[in-house]
Amino acid sequence: MSRRVRDVGILGATGIVGQQLVRRLSAHPWFRTCWLGASERSAGRRYGDLPWWLPGAPPEAVRDLVVESPAPGRPPELVFSALDAPAAEQLEAALASFGHVVVSNASRYRLDADVPLVVPEINPDHLALVAVQRQQRNWRGAIVTNPNCSTIFLALVLGAVRRFQPRRVLITTLQAASGAGHPGVPSWDLLGNVIPFIDGEEAKIERETTKILGALDGDHVVDHGVVISAQCTRVPVLDGHTESVSIEFSERPSCDQLREALHRFALPPGRPRLPSAPTSPILVLPERDRPQPRLDVERGDGMSVSIGRLRDCPVLHCKLVALGHNTIRGAAGAAVLNAELLVADGWLGGNPLGDGVPLC
Amino acid sequence: MSRRVRDVGILGATGIVGQQLVRRLSAHPWFRTCWLGASERSAGRRYGDLPWWLPGAPPEAVRDLVVESPAPGRPPELVFSALDAPAAEQLEAALASFGHVVVSNASRYRLDADVPLVVPEINPDHLALVAVQRQQRNWRGAIVTNPNCSTIFLALVLGAVRRFQPRRVLITTLQAASGAGHPGVPSWDLLGNVIPFIDGEEAKIERETTKILGALDGDHVVDHGVVISAQCTRVPVLDGHTESVSIEFSERPSCDQLREALHRFALPPGRPRLPSAPTSPILVLPERDRPQPRLDVERGDGMSVSIGRLRDCPVLHCKLVALGHNTIRGAAGAAVLNAELLVADGWLGGNPLGDGVPLC
Amino acid sequence: MSRRVRDVGILGATGIVGQQLVRRLSAHPWFRTCWLGASERSAGRRYGDLPWWLPGAPPEAVRDLVVESPAPGRPPELVFSALDAPAAEQLEAALASFGHVVVSNASRYRLDADVPLVVPEINPDHLALVAVQRQQRNWRGAIVTNPNCSTIFLALVLGAVRRFQPRRVLITTLQAASGAGHPGVPSWDLLGNVIPFIDGEEAKIERETTKILGALDGDHVVDHGVVISAQCTRVPVLDGHTESVSIEFSERPSCDQLREALHRFALPPGRPRLPSAPTSPILVLPERDRPQPRLDVERGDGMSVSIGRLRDCPVLHCKLVALGHNTIRGAAGAAVLNAELLVADGWLGGNPLGDGVPLC
Amino acid sequence: MSRRVRDVGILGATGIVGQQLVRRLSAHPWFRTCWLGASERSAGRRYGDLPWWLPGAPPEAVRDLVVESPAPGRPPELVFSALDAPAAEQLEAALASFGHVVVSNASRYRLDADVPLVVPEINPDHLALVAVQRQQRNWRGAIVTNPNCSTIFLALVLGAVRRFQPRRVLITTLQAASGAGHPGVPSWDLLGNVIPFIDGEEAKIERETTKILGALDGDHVVDHGVVISAQCTRVPVLDGHTESVSIEFSERPSCDQLREALHRFALPPGRPRLPSAPTSPILVLPERDRPQPRLDVERGDGMSVSIGRLRDCPVLHCKLVALGHNTIRGAAGAAVLNAELLVADGWLGGNPLGDGVPLC
Repeated sequence: MSRRVRDVGILGATGIVGQQLVRRLSAHPWFRTCWLGASERSAGRRYGDLPWWLPGAPPEAVRDLVVESPAPGRPPELVFSALDAPAAEQLEAALASFGHVVVSNASRYRLDADVPLVVPEINPDHLALVAVQRQQRNWRGAIVTNPNCSTIFLALVLGAVRRFQPRRVLITTLQAASGAGHPGVPSWDLLGNVIPFIDGEEAKIERETTKILGALDGDHVVDHGVVISAQCTRVPVLDGHTESVSIEFSERPSCDQLREALHRFALPPGRPRLPSAPTSPILVLPERDRPQPRLDVERGDGMSVSIGRLRDCPVLHCKLVALGHNTIRGAAGAAVLNAELLVADGWLGGNPLGDGVPLC
Repeated sequence: MSRRVRDVGILGATGIVGQQLVRRLSAHPWFRTCWLGASERSAGRRYGDLPWWLPGAPPEAVRDLVVESPAPGRPPELVFSALDAPAAEQLEAALASFGHVVVSNASRYRLDADVPLVVPEINPDHLALVAVQRQQRNWRGAIVTNPNCSTIFLALVLGAVRRFQPRRVLITTLQAASGAGHPGVPSWDLLGNVIPFIDGEEAKIERETTKILGALDGDHVVDHGVVISAQCTRVPVLDGHTESVSIEFSERPSCDQLREALHRFALPPGRPRLPSAPTSPILVLPERDRPQPRLDVERGDGMSVSIGRLRDCPVLHCKLVALGHNTIRGAAGAAVLNAELLVADGWLGGNPLGDGVPLC
Repeated sequence: MSRRVRDVGILGATGIVGQQLVRRLSAHPWFRTCWLGASERSAGRRYGDLPWWLPGAPPEAVRDLVVESPAPGRPPELVFSALDAPAAEQLEAALASFGHVVVSNASRYRLDADVPLVVPEINPDHLALVAVQRQQRNWRGAIVTNPNCSTIFLALVLGAVRRFQPRRVLITTLQAASGAGHPGVPSWDLLGNVIPFIDGEEAKIERETTKILGALDGDHVVDHGVVISAQCTRVPVLDGHTESVSIEFSERPSCDQLREALHRFALPPGRPRLPSAPTSPILVLPERDRPQPRLDVERGDGMSVSIGRLRDCPVLHCKLVALGHNTIRGAAGAAVLNAELLVADGWLGGNPLGDGVPLC
Repeated sequence: MSRRVRDVGILGATGIVGQQLVRRLSAHPWFRTCWLGASERSAGRRYGDLPWWLPGAPPEAVRDLVVESPAPGRPPELVFSALDAPAAEQLEAALASFGHVVVSNASRYRLDADVPLVVPEINPDHLALVAVQRQQRNWRGAIVTNPNCSTIFLALVLGAVRRFQPRRVLITTLQAASGAGHPGVPSWDLLGNVIPFIDGEEAKIERETTKILGALDGDHVVDHGVVISAQCTRVPVLDGHTESVSIEFSERPSCDQLREALHRFALPPGRPRLPSAPTSPILVLPERDRPQPRLDVERGDGMSVSIGRLRDCPVLHCKLVALGHNTIRGAAGAAVLNAELLVADGWLGGNPLGDGVPLC
């Protein structure tokens, strides 16, 4: 399919997730970053002169862009948002109202009834909420969200084995430093330590997952009935959230059935291929001591979730360890994948900002 | 109570747990270390000339001891063993047969039906198995064991709330480097990483706990019926195993009832005070982000287990985070406490090696 | 010597150095903390309710103190300051002017000609600048400073070998996270990394050392002529600055002579013993792979500098590795030691605030 | 230049450096790995079934190779050696005698007078020692070595500024865990720590550098007169040795002159381009807090040395911080680059094993 390259903007381009967006979009076949937005502190400065938290240096193509304070009409139609929740509240709504399609990593709107919370391999049909949202809010654009980082990895696992009807889930996470952004957790607090609390994280896992797995029923999503109990911890790891997961199903499947379902999991058949979709969203590793964040976090270009230690659980039915890249599959890559889905499904361009007419 | 100081020996004195034994015994009111044993490689060498893995330097009192190859009759009656399981099998039995009372941290004999697996605050009465052991094995001494490090912390929690009848437990551990001894885990494998597998550890937690909580019935222990499912991980922490625990009870208690029971837990009333017994075996920390290994592992001189984040669990009944010092409360300190119990209960000295007659 | 306990206050009591001051003063034979000051953000709050960055919990004796905004006349005569340089500028001067003796860890006044920059083992006579300061500034109190953390360790080494006339020094530091305070360096920046730059640190080492080693000449200090070149780095260590040092002397001593001088170094003979003065300010470790921060930083209760690898340098004359506890010997303990020297030398009480008359 | 792909073998293919060789050769335009050798313990096993220490998994093309015990005649003519020094002594000589060209990372032969110790950007002409070696030892093959990892980075810096005649150098290294191989340094020893000693490392830096910078004079190299003093430390970093370097020259250049020379440094003009040669062997980073191992170690595909903080040194003439990837530019990549130089200069194929005739 021949496709014109579409201009995009990035909100919150100076944080770790924003920089991952910049990097992933710098070689994207469908998108071209032409606009970068950030807070007052960075506005007016050349992007290449701002601090860069990732290895190496910012991509050449964006170094000379001048960072702007975001306002409706300034970025192109399609905008990625790596804002934190408070900053997102007003701004994302204003942009969507004006006509921008905001593909957001922020938590603010994820649980709003008319906002799609999408993982393309699981619930691409939830994008239909965009129409509901436009009607109910009288918006010309839209807000489309991806889940919290640790939620996505669990959701992918449960999505893959959905037909066995997961009923109850216990999860303990071991989350990486990058999940807290920059500056995030002080090194004095994290070196050689475990912090058994991440503010708001457990509720996100417990709530967002039921919406993602839920069924679209007309203008809203009926939450899935799975009950989840989460304990989140921060560990001295750079990238990669590890999750210890035990699952009980309505009808107990065998480990072999689960392994097969995890291994085969992919975008729903018949859907167009998306550039950021990994061949295998879930990789089942055979080694008894994997997955490990340092060794496996980059698999599938950071877009695959690695699974290991799948076995019977004496208390619930089955247990396993899952690992995903929190700022790629859990944030920047998730947003890009959602944007690809929006394009593939024809949700862009149907508003006054035009069909990808470059604003910049 | 006036009490003569008793000579003791330490097997495996050159490892991390052995060195913790050396350190804790160096200022002990009842015991005096006069004999150190280790493998051929170290035998014949001055203890002060061997590598010392802990901060600072070995205690002055033992620096000039010459390490010996262990053999029955060489150490005093009371011997602490920090051997690994394979080395322990033959040697501990030979020592016990000859008349030594071996207080062992090794896993080899923990689950033998006639070997006490003791945590003094929980099951001091299991020491009665020493008489069974002597009769059945025709030993003049005995082997008394303490549990695996991560098991002890869970056992203390469950022991404290035993009257609510814990029925099912899910536990994920985040274990420290020192749990693997020295050299243990290569730094290349652990720096900035999580390893989701520790060989044999999960089975120990799942099995040993049911024996510790079990009821002594004549010449054997009837295992407790609690069903445990464990997932163990190694994290880049020096000392301190963190445990994420969810518990279901036969009858659901309130969190306040559990907090109260954990807080009040102590040596059974009426028992003599033991020098290494912490005032509070379990500390319930009020802060929402505790316990943390780096900040809380030394509480109670390394003998207290710290508890935090006690709250309802949507899947089982209650969840919490526990933390203990794996080479102190989980190994060396546990053994010393068991030896104190043996002395207090009069199990030493009833054999040809005499009532603490110093052999060295 | 019988001595009344003296009330003291602590400025900047909520940072890492402030908390080390609180801890070290909580069991001090001469001082009793009765006043805690911090910025507006913490003022009015109970000290025990504020975040505590060190292991365990704040000392019982200070938990119920209410933190105040600092102002002249509020704290007792003797005040310890763990303020950062900008905050220190106005406040320390105001306090000293009013009559307080400010024992400061802040860098602001260290290089002022009439302010003593003191390490008691090296230049206790520099305290005489207090009289100059009082006269020139018309202050009733005084400001007395201790050096920058990494400077102290180098100064102690050079002070110990001063009679061989060190002429040129090259030093590379490997500094701990706690040296940046809290929150300090983000964990994302420091985990598994080295940061080869610490703002202002190299100049402090190069300049402060020459003043400390300088000779008091009437109303000022003639800087020592040693030329120092420093390269500072931050490494993922919690506490303990390691320093790789090469020294050239006016006349080359043998390594044995240097070792002897380092080993024998102590408070000048004839001086009263100070409670915080370590028996050995410098410990010469014989092992070829020491000192190491994790193993040696607490030596001498954190007040000793450990030296190792002393040997000939093919380029300059001699090289060695030094290690000190940056927030104890390098900050809080250094300040306490200076206050002890002030008391022992009779510098306190000679002003309207009285001879330790408790204000609180 | 069209060139046939040449079969190669790898000795010591199961260690970290061996695996880096495997990885770098898996996509090499001139070489194809067809033979893997390792110790008895691994011989006979499928390479894909052995532990893999690097992220991800071994390259597909070598997974099915069966590891062999090395013996002359078994591997192809060109053999890379990642053996440790003791293993290398006999085996490399036997292979070279038989006709193999051994491109070795082992230290054993580096300082032998007739063995080239080569960094292609600095002393490609030293390869002429191969002819001397063949004549003197009556070998049909040869041994060609690359320097110790921390030596290479210093040598590149000194090589780049050679025309200013470096005379004296002081260097402190901060070396990564991977430099010790696997298992290498125990995590208990390195987590949150600095180890100020690496056995033999300082002598290698001090000696090897003078040979690399030396001038070929007929059948031997006249060592360069630069005097080097090294202090080596191990820090908790995964990959990347950081070096704090101060240099004195015969005639003092300006920092600008040095920066220019470092920036312009490259393979001698007129030489054929080598596939592994980075465009810029030395990158001069402008940021004041760079280079940092975690952010800069992969620059130039791991083959560039990054330089920062270039400035005047008050003691010697100039100081700077250098960083290189120790298992790539410092080991595996250095060996591959040397092999490319051997091919480009026509040193292969002139012996009975033929011009790259595949043996496997």
